[in-house]
Amino acid sequence: MGERRVTIVGMGLMGASMAEGLTRKGYRVSGIDVDRRALDYCRDKGIIEEGYERPEEILGETDLLIMAIYPKGMIKFIEKYRGEFKKGLVLTDICGIKLSFVDEVQKLMPQGCQFVGAHPMAGREKTGAEHGEPEIFLGANFIVTPTERNTEEGIAAVEEIARDLSFGRISRLSPARHDNMVAFTSQLTHAIAVALVNSDRDEDTYSFTGDSYRELTRIAMINEELWSELFLENRENLIGKIEDFQEKLEVIKGALLSGEGEILKREFRSSTARRKQLREKRNEVDL
Amino acid sequence: MGERRVTIVGMGLMGASMAEGLTRKGYRVSGIDVDRRALDYCRDKGIIEEGYERPEEILGETDLLIMAIYPKGMIKFIEKYRGEFKKGLVLTDICGIKLSFVDEVQKLMPQGCQFVGAHPMAGREKTGAEHGEPEIFLGANFIVTPTERNTEEGIAAVEEIARDLSFGRISRLSPARHDNMVAFTSQLTHAIAVALVNSDRDEDTYSFTGDSYRELTRIAMINEELWSELFLENRENLIGKIEDFQEKLEVIKGALLSGEGEILKREFRSSTARRKQLREKRNEVDL
Repeated sequence: MGERRVTIVGMGLMGASMAEGLTRKGYRVSGIDVDRRALDYCRDKGIIEEGYERPEEILGETDLLIMAIYPKGMIKFIEKYRGEFKKGLVLTDICGIKLSFVDEVQKLMPQGCQFVGAHPMAGREKTGAEHGEPEIFLGANFIVTPTERNTEEGIAAVEEIARDLSFGRISRLSPARHDNMVAFTSQLTHAIAVALVNSDRDEDTYSFTGDSYRELTRIAMINEELWSELFLENRENLIGKIEDFQEKLEVIKGALLSGEGEILKREFRSSTARRKQLREKRNEVDL
Repeated sequence: MGERRVTIVGMGLMGASMAEGLTRKGYRVSGIDVDRRALDYCRDKGIIEEGYERPEEILGETDLLIMAIYPKGMIKFIEKYRGEFKKGLVLTDICGIKLSFVDEVQKLMPQGCQFVGAHPMAGREKTGAEHGEPEIFLGANFIVTPTERNTEEGIAAVEEIARDLSFGRISRLSPARHDNMVAFTSQLTHAIAVALVNSDRDEDTYSFTGDSYRELTRIAMINEELWSELFLENRENLIGKIEDFQEKLEVIKGALLSGEGEILKREFRSSTARRKQLREKRNEVDL
């Protein structure tokens, strides 16, 4: 904080939410976007100090640059504007995958600048700055994915942002372990929700859903461009996780086919014990 | 309402929640259970007027009997106590499956009495009367599964209970269509949650979960006795639903294996459109 100036590239839901949260905490925050209206909206609402369509106008004064855009767009942006980066710049991102581009991005960074990967595990089904709100970060998990190219100071700068945005647990993971983890907790869950909704053959399902179906399928509303990119960039991990899941589902189906109640009970006991453990470790209070 | 007296068999979470909701609405509600402490708890809290371990003490004065116990226990109860049923009794239940026992139960009913199947699509992960609360029914779906053995008056008596408990949509389905529907909306979702949790190979998952994983897996905490019974009694339908789901998940896996982003996008567009439709039809306001 203090005199460090933050610029966020991409005034979408995530960018605007982070901008608003950091502005509230006293940071001086600027925004970069190709969409003038999004910039004006954020400036008029006091979410950012100023908005720029031309990155070169603000990059020279930026100490911390947050890329809140799609993975592919990030590389292009850095290639184009790295000559404008201020010495000592810490660059971070919000991508749901890491391994496929961390090396490339780190190699692109000018001398004296560094890239510290980050994954704020929060979001909403809606898009756009007008749906942003920093409350989505409250208590959520935040993962930093440093490598040996990063300094402790650079990593700490990103973790400070996460604390100031009121994230809960802030963890450090290697890019490889991160990608393996999110293949399970995030991408597999989305794949399941999509497959579940798409397997519905009934026109009237909506009349007969309980909470469980609605909870499971909320994330089937998914941004097709972003998520197809995330899925493909992390395909090896994700295929493995899908196969682990298929195996366990097949156990249940097999028990149904053979009528073996004891196998079902064993699977139910196992899932109950595991999920309760997760609840306790997270101190979920509302369950 | 009025002079009609309601007795609920089973003072568990569901039985106690229904008892409390109906008592608040002015019904005279009694409870039957083998557990004296549960009965005393409910009576002391004003959830029921009186509790009975011996059903014969209250069945003669009961106009509407709600079986809030496991499917298998219900048949035994009816066989044992049908001689005590008051003429004109309407019997209903809360089972998540219907077809396998509706015929049997209807045949067991004495002359002048009738069984009207019902499925209140609400619940909590917790069990026991002390966790009961009628708020769980607010706006939830309620399905009645009448057959040609029922009178319009008998069906209406059960639907009135559902309205008085503040259920939202109250629908009539045949037992067969009901079972096919819940195989998809309820049992498949539980099978998926169980398989997902059981496929977790990482000790530290809890540190890195987002909302989506927690939402998808909440229902993996599951009563093994009840749910193995529900799964097995509805196994044909459930196997079919699992296979439909497996097929759609395989499409996603296939697209990952071949690297075909267009297939992923197509699946994501489809699930997004379908799930949005469900949201609109239900007027979900919080999304």
